Parts: sequence; C-alpha cells; structure tokens
Amino acid sequence: MDYKKMKKVYLDYAATTPVRPEVVEAMCPYWTEKFGNPSSIHSWGREAREAVEQARAAVAAVLGAEPREVIFTSSVTTSDNLAILGVARAAGKGHLITSQIEHHAALDVFHVLEKGGFAVIYLPVGPTGIVDLKALESAIRSETILVSVMWANNEVGTVEPLEEIVKIVKAQNPKTHVHTDAATIVEYLPINAKKLGVDLLSLGAHKFGGPKGVGILYLKKGTKIDPITYGGHHEEGLWPGTEPTPLIIGAAKALELAQLEVRSSKFKVTRLRDKLIKGVLEKIPEAFLTGDPVKRLPDIASFRFNGAEGEAILLRLDAEGIAASSGSACTSGELKPSHVLSAMGIKPEETHGSVRFSLGRGTTEEEIDYVLEKLPLIIKELRAIAPQLCVETEELP
Amino acid sequence: MDYKKMKKVYLDYAATTPVRPEVVEAMCPYWTEKFGNPSSIHSWGREAREAVEQARAAVAAVLGAEPREVIFTSSVTTSDNLAILGVARAAGKGHLITSQIEHHAALDVFHVLEKGGFAVIYLPVGPTGIVDLKALESAIRSETILVSVMWANNEVGTVEPLEEIVKIVKAQNPKTHVHTDAATIVEYLPINAKKLGVDLLSLGAHKFGGPKGVGILYLKKGTKIDPITYGGHHEEGLWPGTEPTPLIIGAAKALELAQLEVRSSKFKVTRLRDKLIKGVLEKIPEAFLTGDPVKRLPDIASFRFNGAEGEAILLRLDAEGIAASSGSACTSGELKPSHVLSAMGIKPEETHGSVRFSLGRGTTEEEIDYVLEKLPLIIKELRAIAPQLCVETEELP
Repeated sequence: MDYKKMKKVYLDYAATTPVRPEVVEAMCPYWTEKFGNPSSIHSWGREAREAVEQARAAVAAVLGAEPREVIFTSSVTTSDNLAILGVARAAGKGHLITSQIEHHAALDVFHVLEKGGFAVIYLPVGPTGIVDLKALESAIRSETILVSVMWANNEVGTVEPLEEIVKIVKAQNPKTHVHTDAATIVEYLPINAKKLGVDLLSLGAHKFGGPKGVGILYLKKGTKIDPITYGGHHEEGLWPGTEPTPLIIGAAKALELAQLEVRSSKFKVTRLRDKLIKGVLEKIPEAFLTGDPVKRLPDIASFRFNGAEGEAILLRLDAEGIAASSGSACTSGELKPSHVLSAMGIKPEETHGSVRFSLGRGTTEEEIDYVLEKLPLIIKELRAIAPQLCVETEELP
Repeated sequence: MDYKKMKKVYLDYAATTPVRPEVVEAMCPYWTEKFGNPSSIHSWGREAREAVEQARAAVAAVLGAEPREVIFTSSVTTSDNLAILGVARAAGKGHLITSQIEHHAALDVFHVLEKGGFAVIYLPVGPTGIVDLKALESAIRSETILVSVMWANNEVGTVEPLEEIVKIVKAQNPKTHVHTDAATIVEYLPINAKKLGVDLLSLGAHKFGGPKGVGILYLKKGTKIDPITYGGHHEEGLWPGTEPTPLIIGAAKALELAQLEVRSSKFKVTRLRDKLIKGVLEKIPEAFLTGDPVKRLPDIASFRFNGAEGEAILLRLDAEGIAASSGSACTSGELKPSHVLSAMGIKPEETHGSVRFSLGRGTTEEEIDYVLEKLPLIIKELRAIAPQLCVETEELP
C-alpha cells in the first residue's frame, strides 16, 4: 500500500463533518440571488419565507413533528441553552435532573441554574457510561421540571436507554419535561422525536453534513418555555434575529439525507469501527475500550492507553496525517481529567491517555489499516520516553 | 425606457443585502474542504483556527481594535443581547439608559431588564429622531452602568451624534459603558470603534454584503460582562458553540470591502436617494420625509403619506416589482403605530402611511425613475379608494 498517497486520515467526524456537496448546492442560490429577508412582505421576502418554511416542514417530517414544533437556532449549544434555561426560567423555580456525562453545552447551563437557586441532581452512570435508571427513578419529585439526558455520549459513544428514560420520567411525573441532546446520533439512528416521547430535542447541523452556524430545537407543542434572547417574533419568539435562510435550508437538507442513509451508514461504519477496535486491542498492550462495548454509536472507537498521554498521542497521530480527538481537556498546561471518564469510575491517572477516533461515511478500510499500522508504534514510542503528563510550564522571569 | 425588462427593483437593502460574490468565494473552501473544527488540535482544526483568527484580526483592524476585542456571535440581535444583558448582569444591579427609537433587538432587552429590577430611562428624541442630549446629560447617575444608543436609526435613517453622546456620558461618569448598535451604517460611515470611544458595538454581517447567521461584537478590553449562554470557552467564553468558520470569514471579508468602499458607496447612493426624495416630495401631495433631512444615512429615503396605508402601498409596489419596507408593524390585523415615528411626535393616525426605501450599491438611476413613475399613481389610487387603515378582522361564527 502506498502511504505517500494517503497523507490525511480524518477520524474526527464527531467534532465536525464536511458539508455535503448536495447541501452546498441547496444553499447556493440563497446567498446572492434569493437573498431576501424572510420577514419582508415583498416577493424577495416571500421567496425566502417559503424556503424557510419548506425546510421547517422537511425537518418536522423527519422528526415526526408538526412544523411549528421546529425552532431554528444558531447551534446545538444554543438549542441546549434555550431548552434548559428556557424551561427552567418559564417555571421560575423547581427541581432539575441531568447526568454527570452531559456535554458542557448542557452541563454548564445546569451549573448556572444551580447557582441561581434551582436544585439539580446529576445522575451517576455505570462503568460503561449508561445512566443509572434506578437513581433516575428515585430522583424524580413532584416539583421536577426537567430531565435532560443526552441520547449518546460524544466522548465514548455510549447510547443511553432514552425510551426507558422517557417512560420512567413520565410514569413518575407526567408533568416533567424530557430533553435530549441528540447531536451525535443523526447519521446512525432514526430520530423520531414524537415516537420517542421527548418534549425537547437539540441538534446541530455541522455534526451531520450540514453547515456550522445553525441548530435545531424540537419543542413539543404546549411546552412552557421562555426565550433567552429578545428582539423579534422570529421562530415563535424563541430565537430572535433574521433567519439565516441558506443555513436553515442546508440543515434541513443534511438532516433528510443523513436520516435517509442511516442504515447504510450504520452498516458501513460499524464494520470499520469494529475492525479498528479489534486491531487496537490486539496490537497494543494496556489498551482499553472506553464506553459501552455493545450499546455504542457505530462511529465511535474510544480508548485509553496506560502510560501514554492523550494530547501527545494526538500530536504524534497528527504528524502522521491522522486526525483524532482526546477525551481530556489537557490544554495550556492545565491537567483536568475528563468529567465523562471520571463519572465512569476511571481513576484520574488513567484518564490521561484517552483518544477518540470517530468515523464517517467517507472513512475507508485503507485509512483504518493506516491507523492500525501507526498507532501501535506511536504508543510504544511514547511509553518508552516516559509517561508524559501535562505539566504546568513555569513562566521565566 | 423599456420597463418590461425591469420587473424587479430591490429597494430594501436595510432589511438585508445580497451576499457579495467575493464573500461567497471567500467562504467557499470552508464548507467541504477546510471544514475542521477550530477547537481541534490537529491540522484540520489548526487550519480552521488560523482562518478564524485571521478574520478576527481583519475585523479588529477595521474597528481600530485588538483582535481579542472582537467577539463573533450569530447575529446583530445576539450581539445586542450579549452586550446589554451581559453588562447589566455582570453589574447585578443599577441604572440603564437607552433611547425610545432603538431597534427591538435592544429595546426588548431593556424591557426585560426593567421587569427584572433594573431602572431604565428611555431617552426622548426630537422631531427628526435626534436623541435629546440634555435629557441624556441629566439622566446619567453615579450608578449608571450602560448607555445604549443606536448609531443610525433603521426606520428613518437619522444618524445620532454618537461622538457627542460618548463625550457626554464619559464626562458625567467615566465608569458608564457606552454601547451602540451600528448595524445600519457599515456601508456608509467609517466605523472606528476605538476612535469613537464606545465600549461595545454590535454588527450583523447580512446588513453589509455578508452572510446571514453571523454577528460581531466589539468589546473594549476590561469591560465587565457576563455570558448569556453557556457551554464552552469559544469567543472568550462569551459565545459558546463551534465557531462557524465560513460565516466568520464571510463577515470579515464583507466588512473590509464595505469599509473600503465607504466613500464611493456614499457618493453614489446619496445622489440617487436625493433624487428619490426630491421626486417623491414634488410629485406627491401630502407626502413628508421622515427622519432628519441632513443627518441621515445615504441609503434611506423614508416617507409618510397622508390618507394611504403603508402595507397597502407596499403590496402595490410589490405588484409593480418594487421591494420596500414599512415603518409600522401593521400585520395580521393588528394596528400598532411605529414606536420610532411615535417617539418623533408623529400622531398615530399619521404613522400608518409610512414607507421606507433603502438603496444599495446596486441601485440604478433607472430604478429610481421607475419608482418615481409608479409611486405617485399608487398613492393616488389608494387615496381614491378611501383611507385604508388596518382593521381588526372579526372572526365569523
């Protein structure tokens, strides 16, 4: 195999994806030609409004929702913020439940609400990252406003038993809202929000072949929610500001395509992921799979390696043209273990050597072979030159 | 002149502008090729980070600012919200000043803060829309946190004496922050935030040839501000979520081009605007210019017509292929006079016939001639069939 030809292997699709050519094409006329403001009543405006509402209807069809239950925001982060802050503020006070392994886009919001006087329970997870359902059951009170648990974890790929979570919550307290951040699953799981029974569901287009700068919030009708920004009637008054027509069209197109291809994407990616996992565990001693071995996203192969530091592994992979990601936020001299791995009971000193490979529809067998050739050498080399934990660099006088 | 050729005359550039071809081109490689997440440490991520930081430096250069004083948001609305809510919440309590003619993206935020316990003074304006500087001077207290006045009004084009406003505020209380929404002025006035002396300044790219879905906030270093959404360290922790690289690049490119062409745009557009104003006032009886006759944006020709209703005028203009906008929000049977015109002392019954034409670099003499041919006929016709004020439609049983 001629590796010179293959300088670049992108295995960080969970961080962001390239925009699909069909999506770029769908957005194209809306930059310079059909550029109207959807709020304008003249023909330019009506043309843009029609496009936005068609996109909304397309998203609604995928989600099993009504068009008015679809809110376009600027990112999955703003969708999460609107969902959690919005529901909490509309209630004014009360009790909130989330998990210890949420993305910071949700977790940080709960921290803020906790400081603001809301009671928050952070549910524990098992060793493979599955939320403790008994803890959930006993946590729900009559005043519980919202339960927010991500559909699948971005760091280790564990898929949560969301249907069961919804059932448990609604059985304990039918008035409690359920929110899920579904950012990670769109290319691999069918995403019928209505069937799932959640009240709110967040998506971000750039995670599934859409453009950066647009998010989606499914909001079951009748859900009491306050806006978090102010200034116009756009998006049911929940996300004011001129609708970014091209991005909205792109998000809808990407969602439709991703969901149309769920089966084939899942089939293709699972096989390559399993090959990668098997190869890594076979070829590298003291390598461990993180997350659930069965209930995991088809695209996520996440590991921890004893005696090697995650950022160092990433840099060496990068030097070989391979893009991957670290679970730990070990940057700028700061040594902070991943909150996800910590919640899964992994000791701080064992979380440092964590690496996540996330595959995509474009991933090839050749690329996996290349990683399986390079990674064992890199780990061996790093282990040989001593455990490299991040150390605070002292400033010179 | 062959009007059949000219079916479409867009005179609503203040609502939104087409994206410049150079901007579309600058964004292009960042959709599918250079698609990395700027927060990733591998080569794809570094490439995107470099592009984002180059864009930030370019924006900073235009604004006379340091790169770290430039925050990218999702719209001028979110820039305004972040500026006003962020500064108010960081202070926790205190006194705020704004004007009665602000855009709802600012005004609605002040209403929310007022409900939340902040004291807010809404400064009156004169008959042409200039903020009352004496009222400003006497409104500032020792506990005044923020004064927010838009640089130029979007509805009537009046340019506020912003330099004087900054001087007055800082003379009365050097600790009071000054914010301005500068969304309307980018193509026509040089926009050096540092020289102007404001502490915060909001922009939205789609108002000056950039893409929808991205805003800019100039934030003078040292300004105490809280985030309003949570979830990551992006944009100094003030606008969390994956940076939309293509949009950021597009915003910077559009800002640079617009500011480079300020003189020629101003020269070209002013002449055509003046021709339109002169023509309308000469040809149509009972037509009045709204806003300041001298201190006005080069692109805004705003009028009110006695005895004709704004929305009806717009619909007739639209039927002739002309896009314009109404000052009043007279939609869905609701009769609500423009808060801007009301603040300028125009009687409710006189605000209904208001129409705004906003010109752009693409506007031609032929287009202005076409409007001057059609508009007098439309007004005459509407006046003939009786004063059409919006009336609440009664629901049939």
